[in-house]
Amino acid sequence: MLFLPPPALLMSFAPAGAAKIPLSMLIVFVSAKLLADLSERLGQPGIVGEILAGILVGPSVLGWLAPDAFLSALSDLGAMLLLFRVGLEVKSSELLKVGGTAMLVACLGVVAPFLLGAAILSAWGASVKEAIFVGASMVATSVGITAQVLSARGLLHELSSKIILAAAVIDDVLGLLVLAVVSSITHGRVDLLQLGATAVAASTFTLIVARWGAPAMGRVVPRLDRTLRVAEARFVVAMGLLFSLALLAVYTGVAAIVGAFLAGLALGESAGPRERYLVQGVSELLVPFFLVGIGLHVDLSAFAHAATAALALVLLAAAIVSKFIGCGLGALHLGRTDAIRVGIGMAPRGEVGMVVAQIGLDFRVLSAASYAVVVFMSVATTLIAPVLMKMAYRQSPAPVLPESEEVLPLG
Amino acid sequence: MLFLPPPALLMSFAPAGAAKIPLSMLIVFVSAKLLADLSERLGQPGIVGEILAGILVGPSVLGWLAPDAFLSALSDLGAMLLLFRVGLEVKSSELLKVGGTAMLVACLGVVAPFLLGAAILSAWGASVKEAIFVGASMVATSVGITAQVLSARGLLHELSSKIILAAAVIDDVLGLLVLAVVSSITHGRVDLLQLGATAVAASTFTLIVARWGAPAMGRVVPRLDRTLRVAEARFVVAMGLLFSLALLAVYTGVAAIVGAFLAGLALGESAGPRERYLVQGVSELLVPFFLVGIGLHVDLSAFAHAATAALALVLLAAAIVSKFIGCGLGALHLGRTDAIRVGIGMAPRGEVGMVVAQIGLDFRVLSAASYAVVVFMSVATTLIAPVLMKMAYRQSPAPVLPESEEVLPLG
Repeated sequence: MLFLPPPALLMSFAPAGAAKIPLSMLIVFVSAKLLADLSERLGQPGIVGEILAGILVGPSVLGWLAPDAFLSALSDLGAMLLLFRVGLEVKSSELLKVGGTAMLVACLGVVAPFLLGAAILSAWGASVKEAIFVGASMVATSVGITAQVLSARGLLHELSSKIILAAAVIDDVLGLLVLAVVSSITHGRVDLLQLGATAVAASTFTLIVARWGAPAMGRVVPRLDRTLRVAEARFVVAMGLLFSLALLAVYTGVAAIVGAFLAGLALGESAGPRERYLVQGVSELLVPFFLVGIGLHVDLSAFAHAATAALALVLLAAAIVSKFIGCGLGALHLGRTDAIRVGIGMAPRGEVGMVVAQIGLDFRVLSAASYAVVVFMSVATTLIAPVLMKMAYRQSPAPVLPESEEVLPLG
Repeated sequence: MLFLPPPALLMSFAPAGAAKIPLSMLIVFVSAKLLADLSERLGQPGIVGEILAGILVGPSVLGWLAPDAFLSALSDLGAMLLLFRVGLEVKSSELLKVGGTAMLVACLGVVAPFLLGAAILSAWGASVKEAIFVGASMVATSVGITAQVLSARGLLHELSSKIILAAAVIDDVLGLLVLAVVSSITHGRVDLLQLGATAVAASTFTLIVARWGAPAMGRVVPRLDRTLRVAEARFVVAMGLLFSLALLAVYTGVAAIVGAFLAGLALGESAGPRERYLVQGVSELLVPFFLVGIGLHVDLSAFAHAATAALALVLLAAAIVSKFIGCGLGALHLGRTDAIRVGIGMAPRGEVGMVVAQIGLDFRVLSAASYAVVVFMSVATTLIAPVLMKMAYRQSPAPVLPESEEVLPLG
């Protein structure tokens, strides 16, 4: 943590570390936006700049910030808000309609990277346990990154976008099960009853909220809006639902962001423009913390060894190709354009791969080098996918960007 | 921290404490809004309910939450956003116009509580050092509480409101100097050079931004808006300025929230409705953390001793009466109605009194009992002032509340 001390002549009676909060906020937010601006000028998506900003201000380069509890909490909140906002823009009925294709995309997109990743590590001479753990870290897509790119370019209503979103949610449940099996194997015992219970709880929760959330909220929200005597009652209800479902998701075993996405889906039809604006404000502030947080975890020093660097590049190529082929095959019956879009859109591993790597490190299954390789693979897929998506969606109509001029008088 | 563990049958591979963030968010946000609703039903300002929610879920009653680094960071952010938003609604030229009266109000409102508080503690048998520290803790007004009440009721443009805001900012600088002198005395040495440097730095920073911030931003913001290639560029600029000035404020010795308020003032004339909405979203989410955070610090167990409880009540009465008389006298030339409003509006001590008490405890100048008494005084003035303000502003026109129906299509 960078601390510019106040000038020595001044007496500071601020509580210890009073500068920490505004300083962290300033560094993360401003560096993210400056690099997003630069990225756009170079013809690349802004999100790439925001992740690079994390690498730049992080321990590897400038050393101004290191991951800490405060930044990681804001990063979690940012990811939740991002998925919540994307959920608000999508209709759950449309996601359920593409459920079959999404299931196929998700399953093939789990099997292919797992097998390829484990095979590469085995060929590299890693132990069986290490190989399957690296394979497991390549399974789950970071839906946040793709969703942010699609949302920023106004592409959430394309068929391929809906398949990507639905498949990424299924993928999260599958990734949870893969991680459960892999962890059990490394501990030497597989409890099928527990595994089944987790699978049932996670999928029941997801399906129930996806299917009945929106109609239930359609009835509940207007009633609460009339009853509650607080300012911005609809926004209050939205935040209450967001954090409730994020919590329930964690308890049933899926990620908090899946709960946040489901909360958005449930409110999509009952949220008015006013609440959407308020939610947008929160997400504009917090999403950069999620993106910069991903970059902050990169440790470039591990790649001083040529062998590690080579493994990292091979694994990165495998991560992209395996999702492209697995997911692309699952969507091939929709035509080549959509299959390519889906195959590319499922590539980013983002924070999900890093979480698995962290668990592997804590279990002492991953070495420091393979941990660094998995983190690199997670971040690099996240940086490359938006660039590829920009190409894959080139034929689509220009995005409808919000105009700063269309405004309404404040009430 | 309350942790509901996931059901034992489920395997949870979420990172350790993954439930913590959504659970804390849920408890704080929902309890604040439920008690705000209840408070409004009982004819009281919602803010009173939000602070009481902190006492309710905190260690004294339910024990669901205790103050921790995450909640305190969100509380700091909430206070900054609150003051920023209030600054946006006020014109700095109008504050500077009432500067003379505000200076008088602030000075008298610092001297009276300090003398009365120190006298009461001396009469109670406390040491001289403890007495002057308690006096110092009664000096500074928590501008956030009053600002929130005035803003929620649409009263920021009343003459008395402008005087309260300007006086509270001056009061913060004076409070800093009082604390500096008092701390020096308890350490046995007073360094006049340092004291002078602090006074000059704090007032120069405040005056320069208040005087030239708005015209400077009036030129800079439209230019940045045209130049920056990021979505919502004006909001990005607003957040950048907010955190920059909050940081500069800490470095020059004043509170981060004073910097946030000055940032709001500077942008008041160049911010459009769209950015105001986005800022409102952030503040709707974060301000409850500031209010609940105040309540969380209350420790009711200290008042099991009748003597401590009696001292707390006496000090509370002194805190209210001394600000009422001191500040009211300073504004008396504006007529009785405005003098009463100013005298009441300056009463809340909120987080400022608690920070001074914490320093006193750390320096071992305050006993545990007098620490608890000062915290009680800080919170109780904060709870009582909004209720009194509701009465004092009864003659004012009904507030213009934002209507959920006036909305604009999202871009």
